[in-house]
Amino acid sequence: MSENSASFEARLKASAAAVETCLAGILTDRTQADEIARPAPLLSAMRHGVLNGGKRLRPFLVMESAAFFGGDRQAALRIGAALECVHSYSLVHDDLPAMDDDDLRRGQPTVHIAYGEANAILAGDSLLTLAFDIIAAPETNLTDRQKTELVLTLARASGIGGMAGGQALDLAAETSAPDEAAIVTLQAMKTGALIRFACEAGAIIAGSSADERRLMRSYGETIGLAFQLADDLLDLTADAKTMGKATGKDAARGKGTLVSLRGQDWAETRLATLVEEAAALLEPFGARADILNETARFIANRSH
Amino acid sequence: MSENSASFEARLKASAAAVETCLAGILTDRTQADEIARPAPLLSAMRHGVLNGGKRLRPFLVMESAAFFGGDRQAALRIGAALECVHSYSLVHDDLPAMDDDDLRRGQPTVHIAYGEANAILAGDSLLTLAFDIIAAPETNLTDRQKTELVLTLARASGIGGMAGGQALDLAAETSAPDEAAIVTLQAMKTGALIRFACEAGAIIAGSSADERRLMRSYGETIGLAFQLADDLLDLTADAKTMGKATGKDAARGKGTLVSLRGQDWAETRLATLVEEAAALLEPFGARADILNETARFIANRSH
Repeated sequence: MSENSASFEARLKASAAAVETCLAGILTDRTQADEIARPAPLLSAMRHGVLNGGKRLRPFLVMESAAFFGGDRQAALRIGAALECVHSYSLVHDDLPAMDDDDLRRGQPTVHIAYGEANAILAGDSLLTLAFDIIAAPETNLTDRQKTELVLTLARASGIGGMAGGQALDLAAETSAPDEAAIVTLQAMKTGALIRFACEAGAIIAGSSADERRLMRSYGETIGLAFQLADDLLDLTADAKTMGKATGKDAARGKGTLVSLRGQDWAETRLATLVEEAAALLEPFGARADILNETARFIANRSH
Repeated sequence: MSENSASFEARLKASAAAVETCLAGILTDRTQADEIARPAPLLSAMRHGVLNGGKRLRPFLVMESAAFFGGDRQAALRIGAALECVHSYSLVHDDLPAMDDDDLRRGQPTVHIAYGEANAILAGDSLLTLAFDIIAAPETNLTDRQKTELVLTLARASGIGGMAGGQALDLAAETSAPDEAAIVTLQAMKTGALIRFACEAGAIIAGSSADERRLMRSYGETIGLAFQLADDLLDLTADAKTMGKATGKDAARGKGTLVSLRGQDWAETRLATLVEEAAALLEPFGARADILNETARFIANRSH
């Protein structure tokens, strides 16, 4: 491991720890203004779904994108925590028996296994709701204009036109055979939209120009493609122990991925190209973009 | 039927039609800025869940509360539509096999019966997400300050400290026997919080003073209690045909309500008292409050 990547890993770990602390501080049993009570079993199920020691890659992207333009770290941390609530809710619902029916996530029982199906549905719902609460809350030190833009952009990235729509396409793909264009759309929605949001959010938090915001959207789209491609490769090659969840499930279901359509060699070449494309976007910024470039490489090369 | 109540019913119907049109206009197959695509089966499931000819009582409360303080009707309509998305998502998820397992809603198949369980989960998720989209969207003609307040207040009314938390308490109540205080908390969360939000939202939309906002919160809490009490009475006395859904289910499950604890006579007296309490809150406003008073009477006396 190079010195650079060692320091990158340390930075990612520090950010994940900060996100964990932030989320743990939000998900306590203290009721907030306008709340009536926080029922204990639901709170536990929410905590189980979100305080799971994940890599917190999406919050890291928010924080590094904000830092890239000089945005406030504390505000970026809270927006990252909000985004992680959306990501976690999607996993809780995706694991349900009616969806992917998974018993294991990061080596732990999934929320419906630990707390029952009804509580898992409600925990997912409550995590999604909490994301918008966190953005709009007085503790998030941003202008109302910034908060409104973040709410709208996150809602569009998460709803029918983004992640949830991608999940619906994914369901349909189990019984149809989507072509390459359909797979690209599905993946841009299911996983790409939240990653793009993470990068764009950094620019919003920093009060960047429209051009800078567009740049971060492009960077986000590019690394989003790399993320999904790496994920499809891992599903093919990694074992369940490394991943902490069932693997090989896409192939077992006959679900088409770009890797299954185009092959592993193509995918590895394409990954390298995507990393170069991200670097080309950031080239005007010189060494200031080192971490964002390192992030693109990390996403393309991750082993779990 | 008195002349007053005839004109009230006409007003409620006109408002419901406006809400239906607004929601139908939002839930088209046209993608919006930042959306990638709107998958047809998910869109259909969302439309099935929300475009169902409901009374639209919550949007009506938003619109009448806003009108009471001179707020913009079009903005109130959109916030009412957002609130109806939250209410509808909660019904879609509540009807799921793992929750109340209902096949029928307003005389129609529930979303999971019509579109499958996975699509119903995603349709509920997407409706909840859409609510925050609608509030923050440029088409909603309010200031960023007002939008931020509405997002926060709605999130608190809907999440673990409000509606979703109330659902979790309701689940737990199937196996425990909550006392009267616990039932009051459960109901304030499960149904009261969104009704209180509806009334408070009107004051936010109109840019009212903190005192006026507090007044509308109290009015909303009072009619929220009346709504739940009337609902519990209806569950006991109405038949499934009038309600368009299964009735007597609370009693069949041994679920405690204030009606089952205190009896029908007590409940009817209490309902009359709540209508008087609402009127006392609005007394300083004289005839200007006629519609809000009529609304309280309608909620207490409704037959379905």
